[in-house]
Amino acid sequence: MSILIKHVELNGNRTDIAIEGNRIADIGPQDAALFDTIVDGSYSIAVPAFYNCHTHSPMTLLRGYADDMELMDWLNNHIWPAEAKLQPEDIYWGTRLACMEMIHSGTVYFNDMYFMPSGTVRAVEESGLRATIGMFLNDAAPNKEMFEKDSKELWERRDTLSPRIQLSIAPHAIYTCGEKTLRECAEMSQQYGIQLHVHVSETKTEFDGCKEQHGGMTPVEYLDTLGVLSERTFAAHSVHVTEHDMEILAERGVHCVFNPVSNLKLMSGLLPLRRMLDKGVSVVLGTDGTSSNNNLSMFDEMKVASLVSKLANNSPIGAQVDEIYKIATRNGAVASGLDAGVIEKGRLADIVLLDASSAQLTPSYNLVSNLVYSADTSCVRTVICDGKVLMRDGFIEGEAEVIENARRCAKRLLAAARG
Amino acid sequence: MSILIKHVELNGNRTDIAIEGNRIADIGPQDAALFDTIVDGSYSIAVPAFYNCHTHSPMTLLRGYADDMELMDWLNNHIWPAEAKLQPEDIYWGTRLACMEMIHSGTVYFNDMYFMPSGTVRAVEESGLRATIGMFLNDAAPNKEMFEKDSKELWERRDTLSPRIQLSIAPHAIYTCGEKTLRECAEMSQQYGIQLHVHVSETKTEFDGCKEQHGGMTPVEYLDTLGVLSERTFAAHSVHVTEHDMEILAERGVHCVFNPVSNLKLMSGLLPLRRMLDKGVSVVLGTDGTSSNNNLSMFDEMKVASLVSKLANNSPIGAQVDEIYKIATRNGAVASGLDAGVIEKGRLADIVLLDASSAQLTPSYNLVSNLVYSADTSCVRTVICDGKVLMRDGFIEGEAEVIENARRCAKRLLAAARG
Repeated sequence: MSILIKHVELNGNRTDIAIEGNRIADIGPQDAALFDTIVDGSYSIAVPAFYNCHTHSPMTLLRGYADDMELMDWLNNHIWPAEAKLQPEDIYWGTRLACMEMIHSGTVYFNDMYFMPSGTVRAVEESGLRATIGMFLNDAAPNKEMFEKDSKELWERRDTLSPRIQLSIAPHAIYTCGEKTLRECAEMSQQYGIQLHVHVSETKTEFDGCKEQHGGMTPVEYLDTLGVLSERTFAAHSVHVTEHDMEILAERGVHCVFNPVSNLKLMSGLLPLRRMLDKGVSVVLGTDGTSSNNNLSMFDEMKVASLVSKLANNSPIGAQVDEIYKIATRNGAVASGLDAGVIEKGRLADIVLLDASSAQLTPSYNLVSNLVYSADTSCVRTVICDGKVLMRDGFIEGEAEVIENARRCAKRLLAAARG
Repeated sequence: MSILIKHVELNGNRTDIAIEGNRIADIGPQDAALFDTIVDGSYSIAVPAFYNCHTHSPMTLLRGYADDMELMDWLNNHIWPAEAKLQPEDIYWGTRLACMEMIHSGTVYFNDMYFMPSGTVRAVEESGLRATIGMFLNDAAPNKEMFEKDSKELWERRDTLSPRIQLSIAPHAIYTCGEKTLRECAEMSQQYGIQLHVHVSETKTEFDGCKEQHGGMTPVEYLDTLGVLSERTFAAHSVHVTEHDMEILAERGVHCVFNPVSNLKLMSGLLPLRRMLDKGVSVVLGTDGTSSNNNLSMFDEMKVASLVSKLANNSPIGAQVDEIYKIATRNGAVASGLDAGVIEKGRLADIVLLDASSAQLTPSYNLVSNLVYSADTSCVRTVICDGKVLMRDGFIEGEAEVIENARRCAKRLLAAARG
């Protein structure tokens, strides 16, 4: 399979992009007759896709189910009771819905953590996206055994999964997983070279609780003593971090996932982005689940990330737009072990074509500024992932079926949760 | 002219909406044969449009021109030098671009303040939107006379303007307009019953400076002594307000325009939304200009408004989504003297049709939550303003011409400003 993106704007010039298999084969004038598929790029700008590094994708089914509450009220009385009613088909259709939304908004990869991940895997395989899917562990969960059985079966057939999918080990957090579990996860991550995905220092409560329980150690310090922190670790949130924490995170090569919308919606706190970048910490971007966002748009996330970086820095100078854009694209890809996130010959063919005639992208003094502050889903026309066209001129195959099934599942879930 | 929106979802039910002239004539089953134009609503949800209560629309031409700087560096070294090179055609094409962007994102009205407003008036007349357009005054401006001449000519021909346009008197701020000017504006607003649009307490510097200069009075107290505050007054920003200020604003019926994105991007501060609503202050929503945002999307603005309301309240309970939605729609319309902002028989026919199959609107436990937290421009399919279809299935007439001219003007502006 080969694709030619003909006469597209790339880095300010018009050119052709040739894709062979799942890689960018060449950039420059091409003979259209030699390609299987031609994508007209005349009215488009080619940019790297987004890499969303922290999600709970099946939670699309809980979008708008409960908002604007105190955290424990929200969890105890709304989210957890609804989640207790989730069935395997909800995981599948919820993730299909998430994949569709991500494709529309130019995202080709997500790093997911949720229970019963086998449904997530199936949805990702069918959607054409890339993902790292967590084998979820929560020692405190009432249906812990069921979750673990699903993950175990998935792990046993790992060699049969699409090459677009990686499995990670995903202990929920230090306050839901015991020391033994966390150590075992670290060992598994090291032994198999897989990612470890864990919530870290999301709230002040977690931070203070950890210090009290673990002899004054912060969550980062505590996890470090357990051997959990490495360049394979994705520390979701990492909002409450000391200077010493940042030094540990930088030294271990941990990828801290900034989720600015969720951190504001749940009032978790302000990640000190400027400070973390200056200290050499690897920061990537994520949307978190749609119950605390409530969408999966990396455009929204970049805009709010920039605004939060100013708040945390107490200055209109926070992170610069190039830095924000990079954590949403190239940094996320590289951290996830993908040779992608930039449009160059030889890289994986993950490409987004933007509508060059969008008012939101006009004028174009600075495309990156327009992407961070002005663009949204409406600017995305065509999405290519791993050398396949997943959306063309706004159209994704099978979309109506996904919407219909997601609605059906949501209706049943609502009746079960409130009944 | 009559329009029938056939078989559309409205408040959870399927119905027809009949439009005669510029008003909603009926809601309920209709005979399609009786209408000039039929809009198929089968896959759509009808919702009120947005009313954007603080803009500087021609500044679209400066989108992404300069970002992420200290306020005075940004103004002195970037924005003001570029603005000094603006020509009348830039005002016109910049506003046309703004109008196009607003139509795409479901906004049918904006309250504008910028110099040389006659170009803005022409652009609004041609775009089909509604607007209140400020006759701008700035005692400190170097080309003050030119600005005032343009406004004066506009005022003299006010009876010839489209009924969709109102003129307001728009003194820039207390630190750029003297007491005499502010008093004269208040008198003009009262004498002619026109709106008065002014920046109020945007920054801590303005707040502190006022107290120092005016015997300890806050900007709100100072403006009140000059007679500037009434139910015709739109106080843009009003970020820094005391309890006493809020009492004055509530008592006078002033409309405070919340611009949350701009207030974060320039680090002006956090408007205490929850407190203001509880005190009975009329709050409406605005995007500010695209140099400090950088788009005109009321979707972005609602999401960030909600997040800021939590930050200002130091709690995940800030304003509720229904309140946020109302300040963006009904409250903005009513404050602006428009019998609109809600879809009911007899109201002005300002209607947005959303794509009911959008992933971002699925599932639909709470449409308002989805609109505030999840939707964006991509969800808007069709926009009707004043009984005219301005966008149909994403298509706006004359769009290519606007983009082309905006690009041309921006190119010339860049060369002039940097040359």
